[in-house]
Amino acid sequence: MIDLYTDSSPNGFKATIALEELALPYRLHHVRIEAKEHKQPDFLALNPHGRIPVIKDDETGIVLFESAAILLYLAEKTGELLSKEPVQRWETIKWLQFHSSSVGPIMGQRVHFELFSQDKIPTAIERYRRLVDGVFTVLDTRLADHPYLAGQDYSIADIAHFGWTHIARIIDFDFSQYRHMSDWHERVAQRPAVRKGITLPEPATGA
Amino acid sequence: MIDLYTDSSPNGFKATIALEELALPYRLHHVRIEAKEHKQPDFLALNPHGRIPVIKDDETGIVLFESAAILLYLAEKTGELLSKEPVQRWETIKWLQFHSSSVGPIMGQRVHFELFSQDKIPTAIERYRRLVDGVFTVLDTRLADHPYLAGQDYSIADIAHFGWTHIARIIDFDFSQYRHMSDWHERVAQRPAVRKGITLPEPATGA
Repeated sequence: MIDLYTDSSPNGFKATIALEELALPYRLHHVRIEAKEHKQPDFLALNPHGRIPVIKDDETGIVLFESAAILLYLAEKTGELLSKEPVQRWETIKWLQFHSSSVGPIMGQRVHFELFSQDKIPTAIERYRRLVDGVFTVLDTRLADHPYLAGQDYSIADIAHFGWTHIARIIDFDFSQYRHMSDWHERVAQRPAVRKGITLPEPATGA
Repeated sequence: MIDLYTDSSPNGFKATIALEELALPYRLHHVRIEAKEHKQPDFLALNPHGRIPVIKDDETGIVLFESAAILLYLAEKTGELLSKEPVQRWETIKWLQFHSSSVGPIMGQRVHFELFSQDKIPTAIERYRRLVDGVFTVLDTRLADHPYLAGQDYSIADIAHFGWTHIARIIDFDFSQYRHMSDWHERVAQRPAVRKGITLPEPATGA
């Protein structure tokens, strides 16, 4: 059985969506970031960086933090959402990594400077808008020719990006001008496992 | 044969170090970022995001960008620098992902605001110093009990982090107060493949 420690956030939804897609049984532990539960010693023992999501798989004794590592692990455990054919497998991992290094962290900085920071610093806000536009352009171009990021098949690369595009919609980081990316978002959003995953542990409010 | 497209940078050195460690034959293509060669159509055809490093493996037809994807690929291709034992394998991938999502991007933002930005914005500089101190503390605590990030054995997780700590030394992002991390840095820096990797395509200047 897998224990999942998570909260409602872009990275958290990647884990809940993947577990729902794979129909793996799991116990959900709500780590309330608002109540600073991610800074408590029992959680820091799981992830010394104090970030959700974390999984613990008691079948294997493996404990993982970092959502991209969790997605890879769940895909390899089940043999799903990640092709075994080498070219497809590495397309998937490449776009997963593009999300986890080049998209997620930059969107996180945009959220900070545009929404959370008390100082509204125009040069910082502009910087992250420009960088986010850059990665959205890359995604839009990729999705003009392919229904999913890895190619023909839905994969963990889509789940990773969707965790953030779902939040982008809620907080009004508009991407409607990226038509292929918007169509892809709708396509993914309609999947039953995705619809369930984004409600766990509770729907995001953008706060 | 592998073609590597790279420049002297923290992410570029991850690829050259790994290729040197693995003694894989490769052709080195210097993509001069200063001359904007990473924005030329022939390079954008390899990576639409316009970032180095990129590899092309003509044995498999696989083209990869994102340094973490490249490290995973080279490790799986050779069966080295990534344990096959499951707990060790996933410790390695977890710490690799910690670098690629939580360390590298944050150090990149610190470089921007502290060194490259014309505006010196105190709140942004402070933000990234604080975030970098946070991840250095996590690394130092991990390395207090383990000689390498994955545990007993040197792996792609060390190579990923070293790409950035090498640059941190050059640009004076001091981490000497993190004693275990500093000792680890010295341990990795002495490896012949690392010493060679950081000179390719040429040594970094910090400019």
